[in-house]
Amino acid sequence: MIRHDFYAVEPWSLRETKFDPDVLGQSESVFALGNGHIGWRGNLDEGEPHGLPGSYLNGVFESHPLPYAEAGYGDPEAGQTVINVTNGKVIRLLVDDSPFDLRYGHVVNHERVLGFRTGLLERQVEWESPVGKRVKVRATRLVSLVQRAIAAISYEVEAVDTELRVVVQSELVANEELPPKADGDPRASAVLEAPLRSEEYSSRPAGAVLVHRTAASGLRVAAAMGHEVEAPQALDETVESFEDLARYTVTAVLKPGERLRLVKYVAYGWSQVRSEPAVRAQVEAALAGAVQTGWDGLVAEQRTYLDDFWARADVEVEGDAEIQQAVRFALFHVLQAGARAEGRAIPAKGLTGTGYDGHAFWDTETYILPVLTYTVPQAAAEALRWRRDTLPQALERAGQLGLKGAAFPWRTITGAECSGYWPASTAAFHVNADIADAVTRYIAVTGDTDFEKSVGLELLVETARLWRSLGHHDARGRFRIDGVTGPDEYSAIADNNLYTNLMAQHNLLSAAAVAERYSDRALESGVDDEEAASWRDAAAAMFIPYDDALDVHQQAEGFTSHEVWDFAGTPAEHYPLLLHFPYFDLYRKQVLKQADLVLAMHLRSESFTDEQKARNFAYYEALTVRDSSLSACTQAVMAAEVGQLELAADYLAEAALMDLDDLEHNTRDGLHIASLAGTWIALVAGLAGMRQHHDPHEGTTLGFKPRLPAGITRLAVNLSLRQSRLRIEVTADAVTYSLLDGPPQRILHHGHPIDVTPDNPVTRPIARLPTAAPLHQPAGRAPRRWEAAQ
Amino acid sequence: MIRHDFYAVEPWSLRETKFDPDVLGQSESVFALGNGHIGWRGNLDEGEPHGLPGSYLNGVFESHPLPYAEAGYGDPEAGQTVINVTNGKVIRLLVDDSPFDLRYGHVVNHERVLGFRTGLLERQVEWESPVGKRVKVRATRLVSLVQRAIAAISYEVEAVDTELRVVVQSELVANEELPPKADGDPRASAVLEAPLRSEEYSSRPAGAVLVHRTAASGLRVAAAMGHEVEAPQALDETVESFEDLARYTVTAVLKPGERLRLVKYVAYGWSQVRSEPAVRAQVEAALAGAVQTGWDGLVAEQRTYLDDFWARADVEVEGDAEIQQAVRFALFHVLQAGARAEGRAIPAKGLTGTGYDGHAFWDTETYILPVLTYTVPQAAAEALRWRRDTLPQALERAGQLGLKGAAFPWRTITGAECSGYWPASTAAFHVNADIADAVTRYIAVTGDTDFEKSVGLELLVETARLWRSLGHHDARGRFRIDGVTGPDEYSAIADNNLYTNLMAQHNLLSAAAVAERYSDRALESGVDDEEAASWRDAAAAMFIPYDDALDVHQQAEGFTSHEVWDFAGTPAEHYPLLLHFPYFDLYRKQVLKQADLVLAMHLRSESFTDEQKARNFAYYEALTVRDSSLSACTQAVMAAEVGQLELAADYLAEAALMDLDDLEHNTRDGLHIASLAGTWIALVAGLAGMRQHHDPHEGTTLGFKPRLPAGITRLAVNLSLRQSRLRIEVTADAVTYSLLDGPPQRILHHGHPIDVTPDNPVTRPIARLPTAAPLHQPAGRAPRRWEAAQ
Repeated sequence: MIRHDFYAVEPWSLRETKFDPDVLGQSESVFALGNGHIGWRGNLDEGEPHGLPGSYLNGVFESHPLPYAEAGYGDPEAGQTVINVTNGKVIRLLVDDSPFDLRYGHVVNHERVLGFRTGLLERQVEWESPVGKRVKVRATRLVSLVQRAIAAISYEVEAVDTELRVVVQSELVANEELPPKADGDPRASAVLEAPLRSEEYSSRPAGAVLVHRTAASGLRVAAAMGHEVEAPQALDETVESFEDLARYTVTAVLKPGERLRLVKYVAYGWSQVRSEPAVRAQVEAALAGAVQTGWDGLVAEQRTYLDDFWARADVEVEGDAEIQQAVRFALFHVLQAGARAEGRAIPAKGLTGTGYDGHAFWDTETYILPVLTYTVPQAAAEALRWRRDTLPQALERAGQLGLKGAAFPWRTITGAECSGYWPASTAAFHVNADIADAVTRYIAVTGDTDFEKSVGLELLVETARLWRSLGHHDARGRFRIDGVTGPDEYSAIADNNLYTNLMAQHNLLSAAAVAERYSDRALESGVDDEEAASWRDAAAAMFIPYDDALDVHQQAEGFTSHEVWDFAGTPAEHYPLLLHFPYFDLYRKQVLKQADLVLAMHLRSESFTDEQKARNFAYYEALTVRDSSLSACTQAVMAAEVGQLELAADYLAEAALMDLDDLEHNTRDGLHIASLAGTWIALVAGLAGMRQHHDPHEGTTLGFKPRLPAGITRLAVNLSLRQSRLRIEVTADAVTYSLLDGPPQRILHHGHPIDVTPDNPVTRPIARLPTAAPLHQPAGRAPRRWEAAQ
Repeated sequence: MIRHDFYAVEPWSLRETKFDPDVLGQSESVFALGNGHIGWRGNLDEGEPHGLPGSYLNGVFESHPLPYAEAGYGDPEAGQTVINVTNGKVIRLLVDDSPFDLRYGHVVNHERVLGFRTGLLERQVEWESPVGKRVKVRATRLVSLVQRAIAAISYEVEAVDTELRVVVQSELVANEELPPKADGDPRASAVLEAPLRSEEYSSRPAGAVLVHRTAASGLRVAAAMGHEVEAPQALDETVESFEDLARYTVTAVLKPGERLRLVKYVAYGWSQVRSEPAVRAQVEAALAGAVQTGWDGLVAEQRTYLDDFWARADVEVEGDAEIQQAVRFALFHVLQAGARAEGRAIPAKGLTGTGYDGHAFWDTETYILPVLTYTVPQAAAEALRWRRDTLPQALERAGQLGLKGAAFPWRTITGAECSGYWPASTAAFHVNADIADAVTRYIAVTGDTDFEKSVGLELLVETARLWRSLGHHDARGRFRIDGVTGPDEYSAIADNNLYTNLMAQHNLLSAAAVAERYSDRALESGVDDEEAASWRDAAAAMFIPYDDALDVHQQAEGFTSHEVWDFAGTPAEHYPLLLHFPYFDLYRKQVLKQADLVLAMHLRSESFTDEQKARNFAYYEALTVRDSSLSACTQAVMAAEVGQLELAADYLAEAALMDLDDLEHNTRDGLHIASLAGTWIALVAGLAGMRQHHDPHEGTTLGFKPRLPAGITRLAVNLSLRQSRLRIEVTADAVTYSLLDGPPQRILHHGHPIDVTPDNPVTRPIARLPTAAPLHQPAGRAPRRWEAAQ
């Protein structure tokens, strides 16, 4: 069942077995390494050919003016774009007098393997130069999950059948030339020419350091490299450095079968405030630490870190090898995106590309953090601490908008709003409730009361204040939130978006609850009983738009009266619609880019009856074109809940294969981290039916309603719950809940409490569901698992 | 009652009696001369000091890219900005060795007079140079209403008390340096540096010609000048020309009391297609014609033209000298804007400044054309022919938006959409119904069937097609128009804007009627009976949003549920709101920039009962802040209709004094031509209560319900109706309808038919109304007649 031609299906790795220049960009993204601080795209060691050269440091960006044809009050004036920092990956090779370049000569064989357990990207290539000289290159690359500032490469070149002279140039390259931006696609990034200005360069034996500063944002970026060489005989070494280039060169003559091996250590650092000597010293210290650890030490640390991760987080899938691989690929990249982000955002693309300018959106809290919360909870806490750290900007933004509390940005690197089109950004206030939801989820899952009464309380209080000031009571006493944009980006500026209202309701209640629980702390934030009561009142009066004639909820007030999009008249090549139709037209019709009300049914499950869920799902399913990668996983979750198991499986596959099959044709710009996280969500919230049940007295309890589709014979999920590790193993007929370690936990199985204790797994039978009546998608927009293969 | 300090109140002229650099920009606008083809701001002859130097040719613009922070499909890529063409006004003067410059020396006296009957701007200034040399300058300027390409100046300098040498330099100046754009005000224009590129320059005795071309838009612009001189003795003359300058210099020595007089003739021409020799020949021919006519001839022609105009169009106001002046000032400028526009748009600022980039909006059809239709109907026809000529672009734009028929631009010079913010432009589809309304008004008033079956039919059919494709029938059979923006720019993207729906309804019915009347012509446009029936059906099913609880119409569906703007908490300095609050906030609350539903009650009078009008007016009056100059006149009209006569008078004054009192503080950017037209509308549709009554069998009949407020003792309106001239004279107690010439006309007085025949004026008594209960405006937003005086 190999649907993605280029990558072999294996349980614990992603393997590329041939070299194809056409998938270079996609492969650079899927083979990207990172730790949340450093990101290295899977560029070839020799730098070229490339799709997009990319080395990123989380938080390093350049500012640029945001232009407007007609500016309005409150429009953000400055944008932020992630920049390609100093490239420490480059190792060039001269074979006699031919540059090693896969575009010339002959690639005898080529393989790259990303190991989900090793955390290594291994490459083997055998190449014959245009004049017939043959070499083998073995290169292994890592970005350390343990030593945050460190990446390293082991590079080995071997003469195959004739003696030859090899010259290896290991470089630091700043201000690499970048390919131009793909025309007209707003999802790609701005391209800034040469964003780095040299401040310092120097070399020492087998090493060098470059220090640069960004012109407008004023960030100082340093990169240092050091090398170890093994050669069969004496060799020549030189080091040189310039403003935008440092180079370590070794030359050797290899007899057939002889190898030259180079280990390259690269250290990165950056700061907005520290001096040039301080930042330089910081990278040199990190480098010294890595050299002392040594290559084997770094590899061993990586393995230990990942063994621990998989023991806590693995998801086992039997019956569908592709999904098994995909969910581990997904978990690996979600981990890479968030593991060491510490104090910085987790961008929509992680650190795998420049798509969306390197900005973080609501995806982080709604898609990525659920996965991290159950697998690497401290990373989820760090991500929310970053939001808390940006509170001053969010408070200021709210003030600028005439609102109270915090208005977090729609898209940002630093916390400042960077969106230049307010109907799809500023108006999408739901991001604030999404952050609050991530806070309550994290607290419920971890029981982290220190976090709850500090970061959690602050975030819940300021977002609740926002909602209270954004909404108002109408003459009939309903609390309305008018003129906002929900998750569906093909609708905007609507009154009472159901998702927004329900999430705001939860936000208001959560804030009131935490203010009650920690009244002293709340008082320090100025929350008195009256304010908390006003939150509860607004939540109780929240307006829920419903169409009585159709007997479905409305995505927003009046939505179901709008004209239905002419799906039958829209040819396949006119998707994604946003590139072929004006927003004007999309906004006023019944057409959804992505799950909106359906997402509300997942996250605010208890606000809907089962019958409502089924009717709503069927109604909105027929309107949702999934031009957003955030859609499939949520539709998988709700398809599973309403008993549409095969449809759930199809959506699971679409979410899982988004990048492996390049379903949106833009994986080259970076991975869809939220969709990857959605693979886990589709399996865990979808097939395993996991929900958080909120009860004012009992607190939050984790519940499951597991059911497998035909193609999956076994699903096992490992996750963290408070101080315990829980394992849920589902087959077609039964589910077993086990506690791997930690104190006993009470969970719910189809709403019935089960106490799971160590060494006492609990098994429950699963009743088969009758086959569900088929649902309809918009014409031509059925789930896309097989698209890439057709 | 002189409220505008700077200008004397006189019935037939506008007089400035002192020189104040602070009102220079405003005076340049109010003293602007034009004929709809050429526009000359009232800059001082000597060029400096100036607020904004301005010479404009209708249709001459430069293109520039429209930037977007986040571009969307269908966003216009190119903007258009009116440019300052070659300045032919400049006549510099050297008095001995001092340049005549009012910033230096001493202004002994200064006066400028714009004569509404002469069509001349006359200036007298006596000035003492820094070294005590005194001169008198008398300059008279005209832009010919008869010879479309011609402007002329009579310039006379007299030595007062000592002999002195004068040097007069009469110039053509291209690419004048312009002051920078006022920061942050979106209503001002883009500034393009040196938009003209020289193609040709040459001189001949006492004359010269400059030919330029715009770089991006490729328009060829030529200006020629010729001179006649009278001097007491021999003088020296020289002529020279350069790329951006041509200069005619005369030097003379004047004894006390002696005068040097120069007559300068300037001819303009431009073309997108004609060759350089052709355009050059065109201006030289026009110049020759003007020289042959001579100064006195030009002055006489101007007077004759205006005598005829005033005989057909004068509005007499007794009891309020300021309003009397203002309405003639308004009529004069509306005439100047539209008289000779022939084939080009009438911009929002006429040709008096660069505000709004020289674009034409819906104001033209809704405010300016009603005045022209009743006073200079052929100018109204020309303006609508311009719209017809831009049909290809409107059809293309509709196609781009996925619609049928024509989507006319929100703002444009050539007919191409130039707005970079779609929620306030593309979505404001009502412009199409406004054009259709202007068409039906013109046809009803003139009976011009040739126009009706050609231009009229085309415009009505293509706009009806737009509405039919833009709206849809919902499950209850209502015809809905969702997601559009009405006239009120503090609301946007709403469902079923009442104004839009009612105007679209009228558009659909008018198109169906004309298609029925001229079925052969309609068939040529592809209109069959089914299509016409579909227009009638949609019109009949048109959804009219109404709030049953409040018993008022809704500006748009759901509008009355929105939060009411916090008027009490909004300080005066935060107006206009658009410069201090984000659109996000404005759109979602009950706050109106301008009349919207109230305008619907004026233009679609028969769709509302008297009781509804009164309730609606009171409701929306309390929400309307009038940050738009298009508001006051419409509020005057409806205030009068609902019996709020004193309020109507206040709004009449606000509309009338918009520019004379600079109420919006931006008259320097150009006159508010629509608000000027609104002065007439407030008097004629307001105090005289004029409406067009549509009856499917009777056709359209003009009706009146005249009533005067306390301050106005007599109002007489002259207007054209079919082949007749009608005069309506209103006093406090009676109204007299007279036919000045032409065939008998049936009109309505308070709904009762009256046949007016020549020599048989009909008088009807007017019943006094009881004093109306006061209405409330938003805090601090009462009508602004006295603001300038406070």
